[in-house]
Amino acid sequence: MFYHDGGKLQYHVKVDKPDPLFAKALQQAIGGIQGEIRVCLQYLFQAWGSRGPAKYRDMLLETGTEEMAHIEMLATAVALNLEGAPLEQEKAANDPIMRATMGGMNIQHAITTCMAAMPVDASGNPFDCSHVYASGNVAADMLSNAMAESTGRMLAVQLFKMTDDKGMKDMLRFLIARDTMHQNQWMAAWEELGGRDNHPIPNNFPQEEELADYNYTFYTTAKDDSVPPPTGRWSEGVSFDGKGVFKTKPMKPVGGKADLGFASPKAAVQKGQEKP
Amino acid sequence: MFYHDGGKLQYHVKVDKPDPLFAKALQQAIGGIQGEIRVCLQYLFQAWGSRGPAKYRDMLLETGTEEMAHIEMLATAVALNLEGAPLEQEKAANDPIMRATMGGMNIQHAITTCMAAMPVDASGNPFDCSHVYASGNVAADMLSNAMAESTGRMLAVQLFKMTDDKGMKDMLRFLIARDTMHQNQWMAAWEELGGRDNHPIPNNFPQEEELADYNYTFYTTAKDDSVPPPTGRWSEGVSFDGKGVFKTKPMKPVGGKADLGFASPKAAVQKGQEKP
Amino acid sequence: MFYHDGGKLQYHVKVDKPDPLFAKALQQAIGGIQGEIRVCLQYLFQAWGSRGPAKYRDMLLETGTEEMAHIEMLATAVALNLEGAPLEQEKAANDPIMRATMGGMNIQHAITTCMAAMPVDASGNPFDCSHVYASGNVAADMLSNAMAESTGRMLAVQLFKMTDDKGMKDMLRFLIARDTMHQNQWMAAWEELGGRDNHPIPNNFPQEEELADYNYTFYTTAKDDSVPPPTGRWSEGVSFDGKGVFKTKPMKPVGGKADLGFASPKAAVQKGQEKP
Amino acid sequence: MFYHDGGKLQYHVKVDKPDPLFAKALQQAIGGIQGEIRVCLQYLFQAWGSRGPAKYRDMLLETGTEEMAHIEMLATAVALNLEGAPLEQEKAANDPIMRATMGGMNIQHAITTCMAAMPVDASGNPFDCSHVYASGNVAADMLSNAMAESTGRMLAVQLFKMTDDKGMKDMLRFLIARDTMHQNQWMAAWEELGGRDNHPIPNNFPQEEELADYNYTFYTTAKDDSVPPPTGRWSEGVSFDGKGVFKTKPMKPVGGKADLGFASPKAAVQKGQEKP
Amino acid sequence: MFYHDGGKLQYHVKVDKPDPLFAKALQQAIGGIQGEIRVCLQYLFQAWGSRGPAKYRDMLLETGTEEMAHIEMLATAVALNLEGAPLEQEKAANDPIMRATMGGMNIQHAITTCMAAMPVDASGNPFDCSHVYASGNVAADMLSNAMAESTGRMLAVQLFKMTDDKGMKDMLRFLIARDTMHQNQWMAAWEELGGRDNHPIPNNFPQEEELADYNYTFYTTAKDDSVPPPTGRWSEGVSFDGKGVFKTKPMKPVGGKADLGFASPKAAVQKGQEKP
Amino acid sequence: MFYHDGGKLQYHVKVDKPDPLFAKALQQAIGGIQGEIRVCLQYLFQAWGSRGPAKYRDMLLETGTEEMAHIEMLATAVALNLEGAPLEQEKAANDPIMRATMGGMNIQHAITTCMAAMPVDASGNPFDCSHVYASGNVAADMLSNAMAESTGRMLAVQLFKMTDDKGMKDMLRFLIARDTMHQNQWMAAWEELGGRDNHPIPNNFPQEEELADYNYTFYTTAKDDSVPPPTGRWSEGVSFDGKGVFKTKPMKPVGGKADLGFASPKAAVQKGQEKP
Repeated sequence: MFYHDGGKLQYHVKVDKPDPLFAKALQQAIGGIQGEIRVCLQYLFQAWGSRGPAKYRDMLLETGTEEMAHIEMLATAVALNLEGAPLEQEKAANDPIMRATMGGMNIQHAITTCMAAMPVDASGNPFDCSHVYASGNVAADMLSNAMAESTGRMLAVQLFKMTDDKGMKDMLRFLIARDTMHQNQWMAAWEELGGRDNHPIPNNFPQEEELADYNYTFYTTAKDDSVPPPTGRWSEGVSFDGKGVFKTKPMKPVGGKADLGFASPKAAVQKGQEKP
Repeated sequence: MFYHDGGKLQYHVKVDKPDPLFAKALQQAIGGIQGEIRVCLQYLFQAWGSRGPAKYRDMLLETGTEEMAHIEMLATAVALNLEGAPLEQEKAANDPIMRATMGGMNIQHAITTCMAAMPVDASGNPFDCSHVYASGNVAADMLSNAMAESTGRMLAVQLFKMTDDKGMKDMLRFLIARDTMHQNQWMAAWEELGGRDNHPIPNNFPQEEELADYNYTFYTTAKDDSVPPPTGRWSEGVSFDGKGVFKTKPMKPVGGKADLGFASPKAAVQKGQEKP
Repeated sequence: MFYHDGGKLQYHVKVDKPDPLFAKALQQAIGGIQGEIRVCLQYLFQAWGSRGPAKYRDMLLETGTEEMAHIEMLATAVALNLEGAPLEQEKAANDPIMRATMGGMNIQHAITTCMAAMPVDASGNPFDCSHVYASGNVAADMLSNAMAESTGRMLAVQLFKMTDDKGMKDMLRFLIARDTMHQNQWMAAWEELGGRDNHPIPNNFPQEEELADYNYTFYTTAKDDSVPPPTGRWSEGVSFDGKGVFKTKPMKPVGGKADLGFASPKAAVQKGQEKP
Repeated sequence: MFYHDGGKLQYHVKVDKPDPLFAKALQQAIGGIQGEIRVCLQYLFQAWGSRGPAKYRDMLLETGTEEMAHIEMLATAVALNLEGAPLEQEKAANDPIMRATMGGMNIQHAITTCMAAMPVDASGNPFDCSHVYASGNVAADMLSNAMAESTGRMLAVQLFKMTDDKGMKDMLRFLIARDTMHQNQWMAAWEELGGRDNHPIPNNFPQEEELADYNYTFYTTAKDDSVPPPTGRWSEGVSFDGKGVFKTKPMKPVGGKADLGFASPKAAVQKGQEKP
Repeated sequence: MFYHDGGKLQYHVKVDKPDPLFAKALQQAIGGIQGEIRVCLQYLFQAWGSRGPAKYRDMLLETGTEEMAHIEMLATAVALNLEGAPLEQEKAANDPIMRATMGGMNIQHAITTCMAAMPVDASGNPFDCSHVYASGNVAADMLSNAMAESTGRMLAVQLFKMTDDKGMKDMLRFLIARDTMHQNQWMAAWEELGGRDNHPIPNNFPQEEELADYNYTFYTTAKDDSVPPPTGRWSEGVSFDGKGVFKTKPMKPVGGKADLGFASPKAAVQKGQEKP
Repeated sequence: MFYHDGGKLQYHVKVDKPDPLFAKALQQAIGGIQGEIRVCLQYLFQAWGSRGPAKYRDMLLETGTEEMAHIEMLATAVALNLEGAPLEQEKAANDPIMRATMGGMNIQHAITTCMAAMPVDASGNPFDCSHVYASGNVAADMLSNAMAESTGRMLAVQLFKMTDDKGMKDMLRFLIARDTMHQNQWMAAWEELGGRDNHPIPNNFPQEEELADYNYTFYTTAKDDSVPPPTGRWSEGVSFDGKGVFKTKPMKPVGGKADLGFASPKAAVQKGQEKP
């Protein structure tokens, strides 16, 4: 079960100079793939489907619930940035700054929500729950979460650089800090679960079932020898998971030419596609 | 620029006992969020947008191109699994196995593609490029890729366990091996780029801009003290990134109650919502 | 079967001062969730799936057909607003009003439709038929329709306030009037069907099957007593449907802690998630 | 801010006879348009964007938070229904009931989530936040909510009729009861806000701006007189909102034939489409 | 403006042996990309955005309106095929044919529409209006339409082969016939507009602006000479449009290696990606 | 299998005057329905599912692979057009040209990709693989491809007219030329396959199964005789496919009124909808 605090915000949300363009950009932090609806639902669905040690389920529940509060903060920030947004063509007709604002804002903020946030990204795409990555494998989930928080922090950093509004900068300082923590949190959990030993994920599948010629080789797919393969930590030496040795080889097809033969006469094809 | 090899397959694709249900499941590996279209486009878009050291761009190009060959293999496998699929109600009316097959297959394989693969997942959802995660930050991208290959290998493992077809098991042994390599490859690159020092991503933002009270604290959001916070690597000790010390605290709202006041008379609200 | 009138418009569509920004906003009334494609298909699918008294099917057919004419009017209005839209970077480079127009218009109007309307909303999202709400329950459908017309009228009102074009204002006066009628129409049908007696929808399910402790109680989910529950018509007195008495209580979990146990060894999990 | 209760469930969730087909059907109550993610986010976004009297915001927050607990219950129910689901083709090959189960379940439950719930509907469509209807107009929102709870209760009723599992029937008795309450709650709020006087929504727009010939007339769009107009509460008498009198008339086009003229030579058209 | 005929169907819709599996398949003809909603809206949006000779607009209006009647027929057919569909787990538990039906039907037909059609395809994907192809170029549109009717007829043919229901076969004989006509109609219009002379579309762009080395050459992208280029009507001789001569050559990159340099310090990248 | 050329571009990609508005427009050529991801995947999926004569599969593979190189070029062009894009509100606050740019660009280019291309269209909609039309019928596929290249060339032409950047005009000259070739190529293949004899597609279905009264008649759906039917190549004379004679007639309903009767008591309807 879940509870609320009567709308009290986790951290301060003040807007000194409302700007509908910034409201549009902030939407990415609500409904974007790097946004708070995503991590909220992702952590909660991971928790709700969690099997095995209870502590990961518990931790996911803690942070999933925190993210609800972040959506709330950002929704408030969007609404406040929309105060005084231009709604009338006539006024904007000869004022280039106002017309640029009218053209640049998410016009749905004006015509469909009475100046409130929507669960959409900065391009106006509604958030779609296929981005709620919950695999049932706890190590894979920790990586998904670390990745989500990495791009989430990138987004918050860009928004911080974009705005010169004091209140918004303060709010973003808070959100960036939480992203730092959460990024650390998921990687720490990944480490606790085994770090390198987590890999290859899933680690409950016997690797002897894999084809051994292919599982630690970096295959190049360059057209010819004039393109030397890029070298790095991945091209030689002990593999990251410590279970193999990296090699580099050019890839060559071994599977023969694909051939599906003729079409069945039951299929709606052209005459020439059927067996003659 | 890109080249093909006349349809020669990277590895063998044989189907001994065609099964339309398995064809439906295999679609997840083509058009699912764990599938090959996703990683193919993800690595290529990361390459095409790559700035900084050229070797990462080059490596992404190598593996992105390899993934094209995986889509080709899987598309072939789907088509071969559809040979002989039931198309006629009448025959299935009284044969429960056939009727279960007709009901369980992706019926679009029969009625819209003349028995060929589609760029959709196992539920028939078309792949949607919002899952092509390309952030422009090379460390974040390596994590995205490691995560994609982790869930990709999970999927291949489940498909391997599901089927008893010798040819399909052989193909999956190959794909699982490549997922092992790619998972290692991206984590090795993450390590080469700095490992822990990559974090917090992005690492070119000065952390003194963050609110220091919030960036290494695990906040619990439990309703009351009867729920003890889950402890682990993330709750105390030096943080994963080595730049802070983990603490645990209960979260409390500090932002006051959100209040948007009255609505503008320009908004299409009810009379009571406007300023009295 | 359906018929047309050779493209004759239901009401006048004149544009005095074409404006591509207004064309973008008008798209919401075509392809938005409040728009005409939605209500057209919604009423028609409700009609086509209607069971029971024929008059509701007949009425739905009448108004669903009318909405086709509204799409036609709006598509014409969009096309007329695009006359003379800026297409060339060079001209806009130093003219801020023209550049704001070029940036603010739906650029697809210029580059993909040769200046014509699209079945998308004001953010450019294509209309998606999951918004065609047709439940098969006539009372639920009347509410869906009243709701659709309410937000539809809100949208038309905002567009009316936005524009100062005489022709557009005239067209919107017509559309707002029709939304008034349709809102009344669906609520009148809801009333005729029983009004309060329609509820709880569906009303053909015996309420003694419900848990009687929970069906007329407003549960608060506030964290603690410091947040008093909001009171109103819903918190005490006879319920809206007349079948119960409203109470207010704090919600408490009675279901125990969710626990899914360990994962199956058949699942692609990490080793620690399986039964030890 | 929001809080959790350590995973304690709002009501009992027991499954006596796990059934993957029922798990698939239950998904509709999680990620369907009638489902709990929808109402949860809908009530919360309405709250977060609420302007005017605070009590509606407060009430929305209460119930939005409750809905989180419903998602949690249903996600648990899905996972429990997946225990023992068939994963292997071989076993299902000759067992028609098992094969029907394998074909009929959401195969992603087996191959992508390790037997856990997803934020998708019964057809496997991910929930998409365009269904979060939050208009900023409190009366329109109350109707949206009543409609959502009406179809939500219909769904719960169908699931109740579908299952013969004692635990699931108990859980659904609870959910149906809550839907009864919530349906009453939103209609009660609609009544408190004015009932008939809310209409036409928005009620802060002067109706004298509407075209008076069109706002209380039921227009028929039948091809000819052989189809008599359906009569009812909407066709004559005082209108539902009490602000007009219903009439019935055949609709005729008054707008003339739409004509966009010739295409601009700047558009990528065929030669004959340009002005000769 | 548009009119209806009181629900009278364009052609007979009878179902002798209702089958929910066939209802699911029929949905493709309603909400699939080959379906009737698509062509209906496509022809109407093309009409509404048509510029140039009025006859094409008029013709599009005729046939777009006809397609409405096809949706109506198919929606009726789906509803009739759902009569008696299994709704109860218990009954299906030990009856493999019934369980296969329950698993194989679109379960939403049972739990969300009270046994009626939805605007979705056979996989349950809602129709999405991005498939309404209306380019503004009349020749391109005629090709789009011919293509839509080609896959539409393919679908109707597969459905015809699938069913052994006499009533459904009769209805499909009608729909297949109409697809034959419409396919012919659009190709006839393409011919009237110029046939080969329509190409390259758009034909109002001066071809001397194209790079002449590239516009009539079939470039092969084979990795090496071991893959001979496929030859045919496209590889030599006068081009289809009569404006060039086909050649065949191997493609080679002439654009040099793509290089985006270093990242801006304003971007949220890793330290190594910025200029050293 | 597939290969790359180390990132060497198929043709020159230079940008003289970066413009974020043009970057947004260029996205349509990457991720729009007329764009290169679409044709790339479309041709490849058609190849991978191809049955019958091998030459069409081989040809599709050639050109599908070429399209990969076009995505690469366009992704590079987008990134180069984003150099120097405005990121800071403060600077834009009083500079109308900069503010128009900030409002008009795809703001995700600034805040989510570090100034790189995305697989989205000019409205920011992610490409969705339902647009990968691969029917399994080679003639239908050739029409689909010709249509895709027609709208693709229209788009490239509009972009060419829009820009005055010398480098971009040069790149577009190349792409327009390739679209000319590809349009010719698919129509040439359609011709080789039979031209008129391909129709009606599929041509392996016996036309005597069609209803002969309906397959070569242009039916008008005008409300009354005051709208004369549009005449043309489609209204009289030998049909395009040479297999019939065009006629023109008014359409009349022959199917009687649709009637679904009463609802099942198992359905969640209102009481009045059930059999009295």
